[in-house]
Amino acid sequence: MSLLVVGTIAFDSVETPYDRRDEVLGGSATHFAYAASPFEAVRLVGVVGEDFPDKHLGEFRDREIDCAGVEVAQGKTFRWGGRYEADWNTRHTLFTDLNVLETFDPKVPEQHKDTRFVFLANGTPSVQMRALEQCDKAEFVVADTMNLWIDIAKEDLLAVLQRIDGVVLNDEEARMLTGETNLIRAARATLGLGPRFVILKKGEHGAFLIGDDLHFALPAYPVDEVLDPTGAGDSFAGGFMGYLASVKNTQPHTLRRAMLYGTVTASFCVEGFSVDALAASDRSAIETRYNELASIVTL
Amino acid sequence: MSLLVVGTIAFDSVETPYDRRDEVLGGSATHFAYAASPFEAVRLVGVVGEDFPDKHLGEFRDREIDCAGVEVAQGKTFRWGGRYEADWNTRHTLFTDLNVLETFDPKVPEQHKDTRFVFLANGTPSVQMRALEQCDKAEFVVADTMNLWIDIAKEDLLAVLQRIDGVVLNDEEARMLTGETNLIRAARATLGLGPRFVILKKGEHGAFLIGDDLHFALPAYPVDEVLDPTGAGDSFAGGFMGYLASVKNTQPHTLRRAMLYGTVTASFCVEGFSVDALAASDRSAIETRYNELASIVTL
Repeated sequence: MSLLVVGTIAFDSVETPYDRRDEVLGGSATHFAYAASPFEAVRLVGVVGEDFPDKHLGEFRDREIDCAGVEVAQGKTFRWGGRYEADWNTRHTLFTDLNVLETFDPKVPEQHKDTRFVFLANGTPSVQMRALEQCDKAEFVVADTMNLWIDIAKEDLLAVLQRIDGVVLNDEEARMLTGETNLIRAARATLGLGPRFVILKKGEHGAFLIGDDLHFALPAYPVDEVLDPTGAGDSFAGGFMGYLASVKNTQPHTLRRAMLYGTVTASFCVEGFSVDALAASDRSAIETRYNELASIVTL
Repeated sequence: MSLLVVGTIAFDSVETPYDRRDEVLGGSATHFAYAASPFEAVRLVGVVGEDFPDKHLGEFRDREIDCAGVEVAQGKTFRWGGRYEADWNTRHTLFTDLNVLETFDPKVPEQHKDTRFVFLANGTPSVQMRALEQCDKAEFVVADTMNLWIDIAKEDLLAVLQRIDGVVLNDEEARMLTGETNLIRAARATLGLGPRFVILKKGEHGAFLIGDDLHFALPAYPVDEVLDPTGAGDSFAGGFMGYLASVKNTQPHTLRRAMLYGTVTASFCVEGFSVDALAASDRSAIETRYNELASIVTL
């Protein structure tokens, strides 16, 4: 099968209560691609600036992440800076320099238009839609979003929701999108907006999946020490979609297994800055944690 | 088998953002006994004042809750008042009138001293210890506690922890007891204080169980509408211990099933004020939710 992601590629500057990193590789599509690549080759669609080192593109390719859809535009790569509180749940955005992202118009390469599994990583809903429109053969489409788009581009986001199979939201986004405080109600209300299923991520408290006749809940994998939560949601989506694309199946039973793969993949992400810990984890390390998590949740 | 609980019997005055109740039946041992009684007859040890209506004692007995260990002391019944914030996780204690609880010395009736399963519900650690010392035949003992006792009676609490099989803590209590922020680490550190296993309750985010070679995690049962969370932890413990006492088994596999029964029992508790929703739920309603929760967590 084939898996395509469109989203951001960035340089992140991250402060935690214990450490910091400046201008490290980040972005929603980057984290997704690193997370999905142990399962399935990934087709990456995004934009970088002239300052983006060839080294990173080489590292993408080493992981079977196809960069034919990565445009190198005049100007600087998108930059984001954030700071986390000690509870890891509170994040302050310190700056957002859109740079080349400001005029980004996604171009899916001709040879990638046959992709069956598509992930619309966090980014402008109109960009998500333009990418999706180029994937004529898409059979299974999942999107992520963020509070900013619910706030300033809700109409575009609602149009995306009408076109996709599943959406990935965190608790705050689900409440904001639907006006429901109770998360189960918020998830059900989201189903009314179009998607067949909703994945609701609750960080250290795990995630649940709700659809018609489908309800699955899972605690987080117990990580001893979090270094940086940036990209955890994108990594969850990467493990989830990567597994589904690899087994070419989206039946309820398979979606449940994919939730475990997403959870486990995110657990690696938070153990390092940037994509460091994702890059260091291979399929065998993922399987070990999968079995451990399965034993933790098995009745 | 047999199941005994020692703890508080109270009149609670509860304010939520949506409603309030004054002077309704409450207390840690009350909620536990109501929650455990669909599984197993309960022996209740506690104290009430002369103002405690016979009606309530009759209701206890109607549910096979043996009140031989309930002392009627001169004075007024213990009273507690609290207010919840809209997130349900933040609780403010408005008043605590100890009344007859101030001089409570638990007396386990002669005919109850052969009890095998004992729950030390939230109360002064020295009272928990005095009750436990009277249960010569206790084979499986679990205790609850609260931040107040960790603060003002830590030595007594540590002595209790040395004598029991399991302890039930919420996230705040576990962090306070051990000084560990990470909940998994806090649970493991608690094992070092004596108990064979720790149940860590996270309210709407579920609960986990950790022991030597034992790790099980579970989301909460998805409740559509919370009316009053008072007693949810005691009800969890009631379902957990009631099930174990009924099957006369405390093997790891059975502890996992008991976690589900605890979770489901707590879900009824929060759907009403006082013991209203617990009283209205029977074993059949519990089994229905058990099966529903099992299907939600089954891979």
